[in-house]
Amino acid sequence: MLAKELQLSVATISKAIRDSHEISDKTKLRVNALVEKLNYVPNPYASSLRRRNSKTIGVVIPEVTDSFFAQAINGIESVAQEKGYHVLIYLTHESFEKEKMILKDFESGRVDGVLLSVTRETTQISHIEELMRMGVPLAFFDRVLEEIETTKIITNDYESAYLATKHLIKKGCKKILFLSFSNILCISSKRLSGYKNALLDHGIKVNDSDIITFSNESKTDYLLLKKKLKSPPRADGILASVEKLAITVYQACADLRINIPGDVQVISFSNLDSASFLNPPLTTISQPAFEIGKAAAAVLVKALGRKKFELQNEEITIPSAMVVRKSTRG
Amino acid sequence: MLAKELQLSVATISKAIRDSHEISDKTKLRVNALVEKLNYVPNPYASSLRRRNSKTIGVVIPEVTDSFFAQAINGIESVAQEKGYHVLIYLTHESFEKEKMILKDFESGRVDGVLLSVTRETTQISHIEELMRMGVPLAFFDRVLEEIETTKIITNDYESAYLATKHLIKKGCKKILFLSFSNILCISSKRLSGYKNALLDHGIKVNDSDIITFSNESKTDYLLLKKKLKSPPRADGILASVEKLAITVYQACADLRINIPGDVQVISFSNLDSASFLNPPLTTISQPAFEIGKAAAAVLVKALGRKKFELQNEEITIPSAMVVRKSTRG
Repeated sequence: MLAKELQLSVATISKAIRDSHEISDKTKLRVNALVEKLNYVPNPYASSLRRRNSKTIGVVIPEVTDSFFAQAINGIESVAQEKGYHVLIYLTHESFEKEKMILKDFESGRVDGVLLSVTRETTQISHIEELMRMGVPLAFFDRVLEEIETTKIITNDYESAYLATKHLIKKGCKKILFLSFSNILCISSKRLSGYKNALLDHGIKVNDSDIITFSNESKTDYLLLKKKLKSPPRADGILASVEKLAITVYQACADLRINIPGDVQVISFSNLDSASFLNPPLTTISQPAFEIGKAAAAVLVKALGRKKFELQNEEITIPSAMVVRKSTRG
Repeated sequence: MLAKELQLSVATISKAIRDSHEISDKTKLRVNALVEKLNYVPNPYASSLRRRNSKTIGVVIPEVTDSFFAQAINGIESVAQEKGYHVLIYLTHESFEKEKMILKDFESGRVDGVLLSVTRETTQISHIEELMRMGVPLAFFDRVLEEIETTKIITNDYESAYLATKHLIKKGCKKILFLSFSNILCISSKRLSGYKNALLDHGIKVNDSDIITFSNESKTDYLLLKKKLKSPPRADGILASVEKLAITVYQACADLRINIPGDVQVISFSNLDSASFLNPPLTTISQPAFEIGKAAAAVLVKALGRKKFELQNEEITIPSAMVVRKSTRG
């Protein structure tokens, strides 16, 4: 309506309202006069999108019932709060369709920028590329897609899994199971490579049936693990690449009266506060979840603060720590 | 602008545009004619607000590094997904100012309805009343404000704490500490009442110095608890009203070489998956977190589906369960 009445383009009017230096004072006066006359309220979504002033960061993660993501959120919020950004958390529950829907929704300008940890189903990248093409900056953390050119905040998954596997071997394990929820995710395949290479470097053959991918459906996973733990030759070591699976291991071992670490030694990727107080205390690869969240938010907020933002195509690696406790032998 | 030209109130025009039965056909025709003539584009935020079509539920909670809230979110999402709603999660990190800001933001129509669990600082209610007055339906779950007339999904906090305290007394405890993060929150004071009345009903005097309110700053809390555990006469029972505090108790006891349950018996409100595998396994009051989330979302979604929504002023109580494990005597 404004555009028609003033015989100006929508872009020009929008710039005039925003007091852009590209527009003459005369035009600005004309626009403002009519705006006032008409009591015009600009579409806030569209205007947010152009100006990136929703002051909101969208965080897209698979779930929150995992200490890693819960702690990463706190890291993200610590930076966002300081810099005056809101944080909105979107959960995909590991559904690629949901991830697509959420990113589509961002195209309306709901958020200024996005921090993404992909689902374990995500193999396509077009939904992410499209959002970035629309000018919404996006950085990855933890679960990244390597082929997309942006900043990725990760930990040293390969080295951590290598180190954990080596630790189990040094403590006498001959048959080590590798437990995961995915064989698609970049972090899973890095952890798996670390496991495999550690075995090979120590002269142990990689056995495909020792690599177990779970469904994340508690009951099924529990039964599958029990079956694997019973079938000879018995495993004497377990590397769980997901926190939740460590509890499944403790459950199955209790049920089968398998002693940890006497019969089987266990290491898990985990950020559980209670790891020290489990019976036995759990040896963990502890990821710097809070720091990863902080770094991801810092990179994004810095980019958003610039007129012409740029998220470098680079990986920032914050190393994990192995904390040896009594689920592996002293 | 419309209002002035037509000499009608904004509310009337809004109702006319929405084709409300409260408005006469004559008025509707007048409004529609002018709307067409002016090529009027309604403010989409405001219009979303009136039409409630963002198809989004805002969930406002203090934090996610607590299994209760993490599981409640999953319950909420399970209903939302089925009914075609997005879920946005907002964290207050226990800051009342942040809670106010978030609710203020909702006035722009970002969400159709709100599920709220208040911060432990929240004593004022005007920010909530204002949002509800603007027509945004809001239901409480877990941490409720009783004075606000809407649906509240809760668990039986009083009875659970009473039962837990009674259990400790039956197992021989004479001096039981009550640990919490708040003396403001409704759930905290209900749990505290349950504790106090169980003591009184069993002829034990309530000792104010046995009721300890922590800051949620790990280090400080840890030192405070250690001090309390060392000071004579020694406590022989602990009721932790917050999951996180159970781990603090295990830490302090390990450090002071206090045996659980030999020297001190422990019960905690907790939804930790690992409770059974702690050393010793932790006796818990387990809240139906997933079910509470599900019920809260169901109530809200049902209200949103109606032309004239109504959230009954009622409490829906889903009971907790006490799971006895070895941190209390057999």
